[in-house]
Amino acid sequence: MKKASILLAHGSSDANWLAPFATLKQHIASQLPSDTPLEMAYMELAEPSLLATVEKLVRQGHAHIDVLPLFFAAGRHLRKDVPNMLEQQQQQLTQQGFSYHIELHPPIGQEPEVAGAIADIVVRQLS
Amino acid sequence: MKKASILLAHGSSDANWLAPFATLKQHIASQLPSDTPLEMAYMELAEPSLLATVEKLVRQGHAHIDVLPLFFAAGRHLRKDVPNMLEQQQQQLTQQGFSYHIELHPPIGQEPEVAGAIADIVVRQLS
Repeated sequence: MKKASILLAHGSSDANWLAPFATLKQHIASQLPSDTPLEMAYMELAEPSLLATVEKLVRQGHAHIDVLPLFFAAGRHLRKDVPNMLEQQQQQLTQQGFSYHIELHPPIGQEPEVAGAIADIVVRQLS
Repeated sequence: MKKASILLAHGSSDANWLAPFATLKQHIASQLPSDTPLEMAYMELAEPSLLATVEKLVRQGHAHIDVLPLFFAAGRHLRKDVPNMLEQQQQQLTQQGFSYHIELHPPIGQEPEVAGAIADIVVRQLS
């Protein structure tokens, strides 16, 4: 089964906001096996959009897609908007004959390693 | 000189979004010396606001305030809105006889440790 992954950020109309995500995506991709597709996508206000990226991967034949949110916390966007968007899209693509599983992971900012790294930085900056 | 620090998050009207920041703040505060005040504040949509928190600390006699943004990247908010808000407030408080230095740090998401932790998590989740 072909698998692919998407790093999801909120998105912004400000190019200064977007730039670090491209850098982060390159850093992560360099540590993955070369046959593991990794895409950067945005929920709103920036391209490529999450839905366009999912559709591209599905049409390429990926049957499992992991969506990893680069968010600190899950609010309305990650608990409602994004699941609804993905579900509606999946209904449409299923009607077109595509079959895939898509998994929306918890926000990465809540993983203990990230919280720990933030704590370390703050403690160091304030010491 | 009395110093204090503020963790700054974007803010949301969604309590589910806010909860992890309170947890993170407690985790960080527990690693700091007990005489180092640390406050959690929000740019918009949630209380306490950044400006109310700064004013409280200044009126308590803190002459140096570090503002540490819990953001992944610096867009218009961190490059323009927040510096402008802080500068206007400082002019007002200076006219009232208060004197303090306030330092807005780069977004914490761009520190190498955080980027590294995110990369580690993604690589592990996808392996």
